[in-house]
Amino acid sequence: MLELGGETLVLTMDTMAQGTHFRADADLADVAWKLVAANLSDLAAKGAEPLGVLLGYQLGDYDTRFAQGLRDVLDTYHVPLLGGDTVRAEGPCQFSLTAIGRATHTPVPDRRNARPGDNLWVTGVLGRAMLGFEGVGEHSAAFNRPCPRLAEGKALAPHTCAMMDISDGLLLDSWRMAVASETTIELESAAIPIAYEARRDACLRWGDDYELLFTLPANSCSPVTATRIGKVSSRGKAPLLLDGSWLTGPDDLGYRH
Amino acid sequence: MLELGGETLVLTMDTMAQGTHFRADADLADVAWKLVAANLSDLAAKGAEPLGVLLGYQLGDYDTRFAQGLRDVLDTYHVPLLGGDTVRAEGPCQFSLTAIGRATHTPVPDRRNARPGDNLWVTGVLGRAMLGFEGVGEHSAAFNRPCPRLAEGKALAPHTCAMMDISDGLLLDSWRMAVASETTIELESAAIPIAYEARRDACLRWGDDYELLFTLPANSCSPVTATRIGKVSSRGKAPLLLDGSWLTGPDDLGYRH
Repeated sequence: MLELGGETLVLTMDTMAQGTHFRADADLADVAWKLVAANLSDLAAKGAEPLGVLLGYQLGDYDTRFAQGLRDVLDTYHVPLLGGDTVRAEGPCQFSLTAIGRATHTPVPDRRNARPGDNLWVTGVLGRAMLGFEGVGEHSAAFNRPCPRLAEGKALAPHTCAMMDISDGLLLDSWRMAVASETTIELESAAIPIAYEARRDACLRWGDDYELLFTLPANSCSPVTATRIGKVSSRGKAPLLLDGSWLTGPDDLGYRH
Repeated sequence: MLELGGETLVLTMDTMAQGTHFRADADLADVAWKLVAANLSDLAAKGAEPLGVLLGYQLGDYDTRFAQGLRDVLDTYHVPLLGGDTVRAEGPCQFSLTAIGRATHTPVPDRRNARPGDNLWVTGVLGRAMLGFEGVGEHSAAFNRPCPRLAEGKALAPHTCAMMDISDGLLLDSWRMAVASETTIELESAAIPIAYEARRDACLRWGDDYELLFTLPANSCSPVTATRIGKVSSRGKAPLLLDGSWLTGPDDLGYRH
């Protein structure tokens, strides 16, 4: 973040590499979408509205598809491409994107600011990206073309102290919020909205959902559609409790890359 | 560029890939330096002062060296690392950097604004990076650790209309300025400061020098150490004249990637 001329700028940068973030047979239009969406999701978690993006682009025989997906996502969210760089390089392709946003509310929500006594909330339903990745048709868009929660982030910013997106899975990202804020987060498994009951545990560990995880004071309702899934307490034996059991982590909690 | 809260932000993004921008046996400390320096040079050409950088970093067994070079260059130019992303990926490594700067003068100098009648100037001596690349010890720093002309760019911004850095060689970048401004640029070969007289032509085509190319009104002196190397005229038969001969381009004028 950067203070400038009375405004607070929020800056994010994400890189996606073939073999790590997408498969060699992926449609590069979807990769372009997701690269932009992942960065916009980081802005959403700060309640920021996007001002533009810069792209570091590795040229390839997929240029037309990538350009199509890029146009789709930038048009959808009304974000200008401000510039960037194209390179010729050997080996598996990779792409970097920087997104620049303007905070709509200060102080900007921060994962370090979860406070004992607050409730923990999440937008949306978890596990949809997992099902989409595994081939369940109705959820394929959730995996290939995730929707950053920009409107929700902006609506929440004046009300929440701690917010982050959960791109790497609910358990891992809850762990991170608890560590960053030096609290314990207590999750109630039955309260967490998931896409597939038979694989509840996987839904809590799989990433790529790009939902928002945030805190609100104990007696507050959420100004956006969201579910209360637990609460924040003073740091106990470990950062994360699930249904009263301490979880060990962070290595086996979710998706790490 | 981006207007925000009464300020003008200048944003740049450059990617460097092994095999294209540096050799497999390069010292990654020098690669880190050059990646930052190339982006700061883009800011210099806009008369902007750097506010920070974001790094897209591919992890590898060179992490310690890269971190050292990064620290060197950020300390030298007093630029904070604001954030970024690390990735594990297969294949030749690549790195992306975004630099954010604040314009110190508006309108911001722009390569499109060369005007017939202006003189054309350049900072420094060309060909030093070429000699450094080829192993001439005294010039190795010019290739490995180029110095962005931040102070000069800031001093020039109130006086010049058209400015750019010449990372891809004087002839190619002069061609680009002439094309962007719909003028002809007339260069006087004997006036151009070069590092090695016996290879004058190569010095004009080799990139990586990161000097500033800029225009000034006909009767103005330069406020920084620089050399007058030609002038801008109305568009003639082609964009670029060298000692009265039209050059064809841009394919054979300099370094393209």
